[in-house]
Amino acid sequence: MAYRLGDLAEQVGAELRGDADCEVVRVSQLQNALPGAISFLANSRYLKHLADTRASAVIISPELAQESPVAVLVSDNPYLCYARVADILHPTALFKAGIHPTSVIAEDANIADDVCIGPCSVIEAGSWIGQRVYIGPGCVVGAGSRIGRESRLVANVTLCTRSNIGERVLIHPGAVIGSDGFGLANDRGKWIKVPQLGGVTIGNDVEIGANTTIDCGTINDTIIADGVKLDNQIQIAHNVEIGENTAIAGCAGIAGSTRVGKNCTIGGGVGLAGHLEIGDDIHFSGQSLVTRSFTEPGHYSGNLPAVATGEWRKTVARIRRMNDMMQRLKALEKRVEALDTEHKPD
Amino acid sequence: MAYRLGDLAEQVGAELRGDADCEVVRVSQLQNALPGAISFLANSRYLKHLADTRASAVIISPELAQESPVAVLVSDNPYLCYARVADILHPTALFKAGIHPTSVIAEDANIADDVCIGPCSVIEAGSWIGQRVYIGPGCVVGAGSRIGRESRLVANVTLCTRSNIGERVLIHPGAVIGSDGFGLANDRGKWIKVPQLGGVTIGNDVEIGANTTIDCGTINDTIIADGVKLDNQIQIAHNVEIGENTAIAGCAGIAGSTRVGKNCTIGGGVGLAGHLEIGDDIHFSGQSLVTRSFTEPGHYSGNLPAVATGEWRKTVARIRRMNDMMQRLKALEKRVEALDTEHKPD
Amino acid sequence: MAYRLGDLAEQVGAELRGDADCEVVRVSQLQNALPGAISFLANSRYLKHLADTRASAVIISPELAQESPVAVLVSDNPYLCYARVADILHPTALFKAGIHPTSVIAEDANIADDVCIGPCSVIEAGSWIGQRVYIGPGCVVGAGSRIGRESRLVANVTLCTRSNIGERVLIHPGAVIGSDGFGLANDRGKWIKVPQLGGVTIGNDVEIGANTTIDCGTINDTIIADGVKLDNQIQIAHNVEIGENTAIAGCAGIAGSTRVGKNCTIGGGVGLAGHLEIGDDIHFSGQSLVTRSFTEPGHYSGNLPAVATGEWRKTVARIRRMNDMMQRLKALEKRVEALDTEHKPD
Repeated sequence: MAYRLGDLAEQVGAELRGDADCEVVRVSQLQNALPGAISFLANSRYLKHLADTRASAVIISPELAQESPVAVLVSDNPYLCYARVADILHPTALFKAGIHPTSVIAEDANIADDVCIGPCSVIEAGSWIGQRVYIGPGCVVGAGSRIGRESRLVANVTLCTRSNIGERVLIHPGAVIGSDGFGLANDRGKWIKVPQLGGVTIGNDVEIGANTTIDCGTINDTIIADGVKLDNQIQIAHNVEIGENTAIAGCAGIAGSTRVGKNCTIGGGVGLAGHLEIGDDIHFSGQSLVTRSFTEPGHYSGNLPAVATGEWRKTVARIRRMNDMMQRLKALEKRVEALDTEHKPD
Repeated sequence: MAYRLGDLAEQVGAELRGDADCEVVRVSQLQNALPGAISFLANSRYLKHLADTRASAVIISPELAQESPVAVLVSDNPYLCYARVADILHPTALFKAGIHPTSVIAEDANIADDVCIGPCSVIEAGSWIGQRVYIGPGCVVGAGSRIGRESRLVANVTLCTRSNIGERVLIHPGAVIGSDGFGLANDRGKWIKVPQLGGVTIGNDVEIGANTTIDCGTINDTIIADGVKLDNQIQIAHNVEIGENTAIAGCAGIAGSTRVGKNCTIGGGVGLAGHLEIGDDIHFSGQSLVTRSFTEPGHYSGNLPAVATGEWRKTVARIRRMNDMMQRLKALEKRVEALDTEHKPD
Repeated sequence: MAYRLGDLAEQVGAELRGDADCEVVRVSQLQNALPGAISFLANSRYLKHLADTRASAVIISPELAQESPVAVLVSDNPYLCYARVADILHPTALFKAGIHPTSVIAEDANIADDVCIGPCSVIEAGSWIGQRVYIGPGCVVGAGSRIGRESRLVANVTLCTRSNIGERVLIHPGAVIGSDGFGLANDRGKWIKVPQLGGVTIGNDVEIGANTTIDCGTINDTIIADGVKLDNQIQIAHNVEIGENTAIAGCAGIAGSTRVGKNCTIGGGVGLAGHLEIGDDIHFSGQSLVTRSFTEPGHYSGNLPAVATGEWRKTVARIRRMNDMMQRLKALEKRVEALDTEHKPD
């Protein structure tokens, strides 16, 4: 559907500089946009594509607005403005309510009238499913689970028993919520399973990526607060708690009972040890290993970027020989001390 | 169901100090227990919650027993004792045997009478499924697989062809057993697939976490011995062998043909290169990279914990300039040598 | 089926030294082969097993051929030659075309006559499925997806909408193709989802491992070129592009918009940051972290191999005190300079 730039600007609260009657029908990247498209510039590395863009309009910051050869929607946060424009031009398709005949629904499941349950999905006993929930094909909703209104399980999602999902939660394929925590007691060399009796509580407006796993708690629940965003392939262990609006990138792992505060960002592949307390507004860069609690807001790192292997081998050898280096430094200090002393009386 | 403390103590072999007739009905954490709950203290970081606990009883070590304000079950291994108590108070629900009509069972599959096969599960040709096996919804049991008695596939588990699962094995959702190993031969730049003809053999009493993957062997089997415990999101490559009672934490990866001994622990996110021999009783701390064989029992590490990013940047710069540092140290040694020599004759 | 060595040698283009009429029926490892088996020696660490092998024949390099106690197929690339022999002796079972009655196929899906669609699989609206495609049990093929001829989805694979899969592509269980990218704009502390409107384009002869995830692009497609091989548990973020014949080992992760060239190899657990340009013929060793672009062909590393924990702790302490070491070195340099100056006039 076509939108007038003037209408779009008004809807998203941006300042339009250009022809309000110009119409756009889609979003595009700067470098391959065609007329009829609206693009955006939110990362200076793509500035080089601005001059030649064929887009009908560009969403841009005030500082760069006058460099655009075409109409602009000016916004202090062009990426956010773009997200809103994209939502208007390409709205999520509405689904048709209905329960597919190949799905298997427990008799005592409590299911709102206007949900969609796709083929080959299984809703176990005692589940509660709110209004406008979408459950795609191949999903399993374990006994006693609860899914708040307008949440969406895309496909092949598994909720184990006692999963409590908030409203407007989006869960991508292959995600597993509420699997047993890794609780083991050692009995003279053999591992004895510690029963995992808790559940998982997921707040509202949470997004959970493909193949991400969130274990149930041992006694109490694992808790993911409102607005948390989890990328793909993340592992959240039992009794972890994640505070509001914290975002975690792919392949990160958080060990048991660690609590992460609000508004944190955790980079890809980061590992957090168990039983830590991470405060609010804390940011870990990619592949860092976190072995102690941090309460001071700020950025933390512990990763070594790759360099040419030859150079790296020398570095590793040097690191291995740091003790030797320190010994030689100390010896030299003593010797210079001695020299100095001898020298002084001269 | 309510249990007398006296009976519980006897069943789990703990010493009761307190009222044998006091009844408990559930387990709880120290800090939020209510009367009727039994709690435990196995990690000294939770000692602070002991004095104020409202639990009816606490499972505790002999050293700390007299600090408890309530009845205690004294055990040298309180966590193990807790696991047993939790099992008694909250036993795993028995399942009702039966094959759901929406499951698809190959005609020649050999299935014991008292199994449960859930909805939308598929059992392929030539499978053998033992007594009291539970196969939850959405599982696939590939052709020629074998599942020993009392094993449990929770939901959406995939066993590929030639998976041989022992007894009392617990496999969590999304786990994939027996997928092709990553075997590639290079033909002038193009990768040619090496047929993956082996299977996977899993021993008894193994637990396999959510979304963990275990590849089949190239010719012979990949082998997971009795009592091995695997957390979520672990990758086990073709022809790996894991010895008895080894426990591996989430997100670890083991490359092809590596053999790990008995009673090892491998921390979260650890990576083991291929073709290594790791002996018994070896422990790798989280996120370590293992590039050579280790046979000596002990603890091994190679990870750098995160610190404030500003501090870290300086450290990385210093590491990069270690060669320079070494050169300067050597120059200084020569110079001091020279000074010394000149000085001596004075 | 039995093959004459003479025929095998001819079919795979290897030089036979030995009895052309000797027959083999299977492949085996050197160390546990029985007569009737053909084995191979491609890695010198297994040379020790050659002298005692009971295999009927061994595939081997020219340099080692005369050390074999049995007939040899001589090849400059024994592993490749083995792959071809294994393919001949153990061909992939042909499937019987047909659509299982428990699968759910959208009316407007365009499906070739000779495909196989297994039980409990779901093919959504507007899909196009080419000749001799095999879709195993429990798969979901999202709306508007396209699967080229002779591709194979093993089981429980999820293709989201707009997944475009080439020919002869092999996708293992639990893989998720086309899930939403992790695109978030921040609105005064809250994360707003950026619509993920692109698709995924996978070339021909690609292999995708178990539980690997490939996100769709934000506007344009995420692209995996012909001949790319991806191991298990890999995360490929939105708008990543991977060039021809690049192979990536398990647990690696590539962040958004990074482009990797042709003929690269990426080791297990490697992490690539977003928006990078990695050229052709670039190789990253396992668990490296890549934070900048590399264009020069070669090998790059940044990982620290594990050592005994006691030794490691000292090393970490030294690394932490490198600033101190540098200060002491500088102080010493000054002092020696001073000594030298004082000394000279003597």
